[in-house]
Amino acid sequence: MRRIMLTVAYDGSDYHGWQTEPTGITVEEVLNRALSALLKEEVRVSGASRTDAGVHARGNLCVFDTEAPIPPEKIAPALLGRLPDDIVVRASREVPAGFHPRRCDSVKTYEYTIYRDELPDPLVRRTSWFLYRPLDVEAMRRAAAFLIGEHDFQSFCAAGAQVQTTVRRITAVTVAEDGPFLRIRVSGTGFLYNMVRILTGTLVQVGLGQKRPEDIPLILVSKDRAQAGPTAPPQGLCLMKIDLYPSGFPAELLT
Amino acid sequence: MRRIMLTVAYDGSDYHGWQTEPTGITVEEVLNRALSALLKEEVRVSGASRTDAGVHARGNLCVFDTEAPIPPEKIAPALLGRLPDDIVVRASREVPAGFHPRRCDSVKTYEYTIYRDELPDPLVRRTSWFLYRPLDVEAMRRAAAFLIGEHDFQSFCAAGAQVQTTVRRITAVTVAEDGPFLRIRVSGTGFLYNMVRILTGTLVQVGLGQKRPEDIPLILVSKDRAQAGPTAPPQGLCLMKIDLYPSGFPAELLT
Repeated sequence: MRRIMLTVAYDGSDYHGWQTEPTGITVEEVLNRALSALLKEEVRVSGASRTDAGVHARGNLCVFDTEAPIPPEKIAPALLGRLPDDIVVRASREVPAGFHPRRCDSVKTYEYTIYRDELPDPLVRRTSWFLYRPLDVEAMRRAAAFLIGEHDFQSFCAAGAQVQTTVRRITAVTVAEDGPFLRIRVSGTGFLYNMVRILTGTLVQVGLGQKRPEDIPLILVSKDRAQAGPTAPPQGLCLMKIDLYPSGFPAELLT
Repeated sequence: MRRIMLTVAYDGSDYHGWQTEPTGITVEEVLNRALSALLKEEVRVSGASRTDAGVHARGNLCVFDTEAPIPPEKIAPALLGRLPDDIVVRASREVPAGFHPRRCDSVKTYEYTIYRDELPDPLVRRTSWFLYRPLDVEAMRRAAAFLIGEHDFQSFCAAGAQVQTTVRRITAVTVAEDGPFLRIRVSGTGFLYNMVRILTGTLVQVGLGQKRPEDIPLILVSKDRAQAGPTAPPQGLCLMKIDLYPSGFPAELLT
């Protein structure tokens, strides 16, 4: 029995998330079916990040166990013809027995894409949030800087989420302009439910002048979801990568 | 009775082209239905470019006549809620009676997007052609330069097309790298059926070393479709804009 880890990219537009809805097709289900057919045994993947309905990924991870004799690195190319074209397994490799990315120290990097124009562009509607009002990008950058470091992010967590602690560490935030696109890239050692989308909704309020950059620390200490901005829509969000640190975080990441 | 011109953007993935198939939904049909409902009269648009199934547009044009008293520039925003989100009318304005973009001198600009990587990216699959073999971009640029000017493009026209002449003028071609993307942008005073896709397929053969840049002039003079490369798939192609010259081409464009 060997444990295999997959790097998975998907267009989440037509899925009910990685593993959320009991009704509606999920990315996990489609992977299970394709892997079971390929390996001729019942396969059940376990994902690193359970992305929401409509959210995309370029580098989600999952693991599964198999007794099939296929070389691990051949699994990704062999799946190409067996998966719908909105899911691509970009890499496959063997990992130690019992290894799980959710049990490793890790840094996840998300990118949220905003499309700024007078009218929407149908060619980017599935992968961005359309906003027609001008945004003060410099103010958004000043606001974003307040998020870096270890904070209690309870204000930026969807109500009802069950977690032991709402303290998380954000290691980097950038707000980059790329023509009509604005890309908010957030890396952190952990994220609460809807946290990146609520951070984005709050930064957009700053960009619109509805909040000041200096409000961010006040929102953090309030520990009140109502003080933060709205949850940005799912289609702008993409899980870009998960960096794993099986022997623990390097010191420079935590300072 | 007034004549209105619309600038139309669409994701062509789910359409049987602008106006091609007797079976299957077309962009034109959806526009006719939305405009008829908005203006409360039977509307029939007439397009500048009949893009193929799966081909996209950021700036196709069409005209129609109406007796409705709505201010012309209000038509585009009023259509936003009445069209599916894969079609966006980006501008609407009144033009002289009888005016038609197809009867004007015009320069059309197309962009063909290639995505280069080892494995496909599901997030760009609807808007690019995935190629995993490395391309010699410099050779493609040298090949593209041979296309500029007035030539008989019969070798680059899909067989069976009925046209009076296959002479066309290409005013500009660029091959630009943008990370994993390669964007071939072609402007010209007219295009034959499938011409940009066959040009792209031929430039890709040059990029793969299957043809030399110096073969392009030989392919042009052969007037033989079989000498050119394959037709690139539709989803990489986007009609970016149509510049109209109602009083004729400026001299500098034709030299």
